Amino acid sequence: MANIQPFLLIIPILALLTQFLKNPNTPALIAKHFPQLCTNPHSAELLQRIKLSKLCTMPEEHKQLMIPGPVEVHEDVLSAAGGLSMSHVDPVFVNQFGEALELLRKVLVTETGQPFIVSASGTLGWDMVAVNLVEPGEDILVLNTGFFGDRFAESLEVYGGRTTHVRAPVGSRPTMAAIQAALNEKPYKMVTITHVDTSTGVLMPVEAISKMVKAKNPKTIVVVDGVCSIGGETLLFDAWNVDVAMTASQKALGAPPGLSIMMVSQYAMSVFNERKAPIPSYYGSWRKWLPVMKAYEARTPAYFATPAVQLIQALHVSLKQILTQTPDIMDRFAKHEAVSDHVKRVVASWGLRMVPAIEEAAHTMTGVYLPEGMALPQLLPKVSAKGVVLAGGLHPDIAPKYFRIGHMGLSVMEDHRGHIDNVLKVVKEALGEAGYTFPQDAL
Amino acid sequence: MANIQPFLLIIPILALLTQFLKNPNTPALIAKHFPQLCTNPHSAELLQRIKLSKLCTMPEEHKQLMIPGPVEVHEDVLSAAGGLSMSHVDPVFVNQFGEALELLRKVLVTETGQPFIVSASGTLGWDMVAVNLVEPGEDILVLNTGFFGDRFAESLEVYGGRTTHVRAPVGSRPTMAAIQAALNEKPYKMVTITHVDTSTGVLMPVEAISKMVKAKNPKTIVVVDGVCSIGGETLLFDAWNVDVAMTASQKALGAPPGLSIMMVSQYAMSVFNERKAPIPSYYGSWRKWLPVMKAYEARTPAYFATPAVQLIQALHVSLKQILTQTPDIMDRFAKHEAVSDHVKRVVASWGLRMVPAIEEAAHTMTGVYLPEGMALPQLLPKVSAKGVVLAGGLHPDIAPKYFRIGHMGLSVMEDHRGHIDNVLKVVKEALGEAGYTFPQDAL
Repeated sequence: MANIQPFLLIIPILALLTQFLKNPNTPALIAKHFPQLCTNPHSAELLQRIKLSKLCTMPEEHKQLMIPGPVEVHEDVLSAAGGLSMSHVDPVFVNQFGEALELLRKVLVTETGQPFIVSASGTLGWDMVAVNLVEPGEDILVLNTGFFGDRFAESLEVYGGRTTHVRAPVGSRPTMAAIQAALNEKPYKMVTITHVDTSTGVLMPVEAISKMVKAKNPKTIVVVDGVCSIGGETLLFDAWNVDVAMTASQKALGAPPGLSIMMVSQYAMSVFNERKAPIPSYYGSWRKWLPVMKAYEARTPAYFATPAVQLIQALHVSLKQILTQTPDIMDRFAKHEAVSDHVKRVVASWGLRMVPAIEEAAHTMTGVYLPEGMALPQLLPKVSAKGVVLAGGLHPDIAPKYFRIGHMGLSVMEDHRGHIDNVLKVVKEALGEAGYTFPQDAL
Repeated sequence: MANIQPFLLIIPILALLTQFLKNPNTPALIAKHFPQLCTNPHSAELLQRIKLSKLCTMPEEHKQLMIPGPVEVHEDVLSAAGGLSMSHVDPVFVNQFGEALELLRKVLVTETGQPFIVSASGTLGWDMVAVNLVEPGEDILVLNTGFFGDRFAESLEVYGGRTTHVRAPVGSRPTMAAIQAALNEKPYKMVTITHVDTSTGVLMPVEAISKMVKAKNPKTIVVVDGVCSIGGETLLFDAWNVDVAMTASQKALGAPPGLSIMMVSQYAMSVFNERKAPIPSYYGSWRKWLPVMKAYEARTPAYFATPAVQLIQALHVSLKQILTQTPDIMDRFAKHEAVSDHVKRVVASWGLRMVPAIEEAAHTMTGVYLPEGMALPQLLPKVSAKGVVLAGGLHPDIAPKYFRIGHMGLSVMEDHRGHIDNVLKVVKEALGEAGYTFPQDAL
């Protein structure tokens, strides 16, 4: 215990600090009561650290966030998100940004993909696909599984893309035969796939679809909206011949919202480079962003727009965690599947129907129909009162009839937090309190 | 001192915690050594707070960031930026977002302006002006004081705006006569003014220009790029008849980067509403964002793209601080002027020339020419080694010849931090070490 000695000073300081934390005159009071602080060479740093800590500002109560994004974020990631200001050209940040770009490649299982990390909601990813890869009048096949397929198509059309939709009933996905039939109709510049539609939790078989698209025409660009999948669902960018995969920071990559994240194949970059029409966007133009991404990855700064320094630092911490926790990323995907299977097995044992059939369901979220006769306001406030936040329905056709549980990132990967057990326990209790009678063999 | 009693438990816990902080088995060790933690009803929260604190994750060294953005950020703002995840439709967040929109109006001194807070770099603000207010072929007068005037014009042209520039030599601004002459040439849909050009620190007389523009044609839209001014320089949105003012979160509003922030007059909103041409953007369209801003301000959630929850919470804290610190916002502007005058007086006393002449210089930053024969690599690394980060030159014509000191936000408003004294002391020392000989009466 010899090394406890230098820390002894901290005891009386912290004792008094607890008194002072809520007092706006704290620094002055500390200086008055603890003159020795001014002579201890470490005291300035110590004081600053205490002051910077969340001890005084954490909210009284935190509710476990189990919606399909934003998700719960690791404390180390949050610390980076709330880190002290750093210049966007500081060598430390340049290295963090560069590493984040490299790590993103590993998470998406690609050797040669070109990553982009841009300040924006994930939504900007649709614009970036449209303005950089689509020329006015070009045909795009939208494999539409719900709300987000509609929105992606809307974005493509703003920039002159002509979309054809392959749709399916709510909560299911187009058949492979329907997709093949659409591909046979005419040649497409691009096919878009919503990997997981956050509105319903329908999962699309990206590998099989990509194979079918490329077999029909290897020049067709395969775009995966992976907002509710990347980092959770299996997605092998190179092996599956994906050309663009996009997501946002606040989903299975486990950082706060505010970053639009993409991976682009060298083939798609070549299509971009050979583009004839002018790029109909300034902020979304890869001509602006590509030199910045290449520069930071080469560990030199470049400027187009000030990057969201702390958010990128947070993403950097999260990506490192992801690849340290399961050095083989396949283990992460498998864990998401196992946890999802468990959630769905438990919910099924309650006698409740899920929005997509199990074989068409995502592993990052679960959409659950309410019991007959029960409305969302009877359930969700009870769940919230028990400290868990779920999402209501989003797909306009069925919105009042179902709720959504998100299970991705830390809540899935860190068993010791008990997030999954807790959400299931709380939802079961709340259903019971709302008058639902469970089957006898309910888990 | 009766109320110290409930805190006594914290003393031995924290003492041991200091031993444990760097140990990955910390939670287990604490549980073993402090079984009483499990019986104290407050212990769970206490432990979580300690765990969430930055005590263990703060970088070893922090350099004082004195560039013209990002700027130093208050610890309470950082705590919000690194806060635990919260749903973007949580009533707590809905209220914070709504308040942030209202507070923004106060900081910009407007009663009726329509605020927008969007996930993006400030750069998106240019796109939003262009895609919502400019129709293809319309004429725009760009009052160009440097790097950022060029960039704004480039963005406007991407969307079909036809720009005419009124330029001035580097480090100075167009004369009022030159602006009047340009206004007399032809009618303009819009005039853009870079309030403070971050590349050189030139300040534009927005009030006088706006008056001149509106006198010539009250229908001309006056747009102020306030990225390096809003929250620091005097800007009276209503009184000066400004139609659009835009900034980013990481400048004088004192939050981390990642938010594009705008204020739009009701007149400009009416021009937007009467727009004939389709809006050539999806992510930048006010048709998408306006209902979201109106909803959150009315304290109901609405969805277009997931907002950057923690960044908006950070901005909310910062805006509250700004308006608490100086309830009359004019006092904040006056303080920025006083500090800027001090910095410029000291730098002048060193015998160094500043980039804009004093009467054309911003109060949020100072651009300083290096002494004859000295290069940036002789100075900036020395400054950095002393714990202060400055920015090099940015305007391409003179980039290697000058450096920039940012002075806005907390570094200006909170004297007790000593940021201004420190940056002046450090730069003076570094200049001396680089071989510069100061005049005898140097401050």
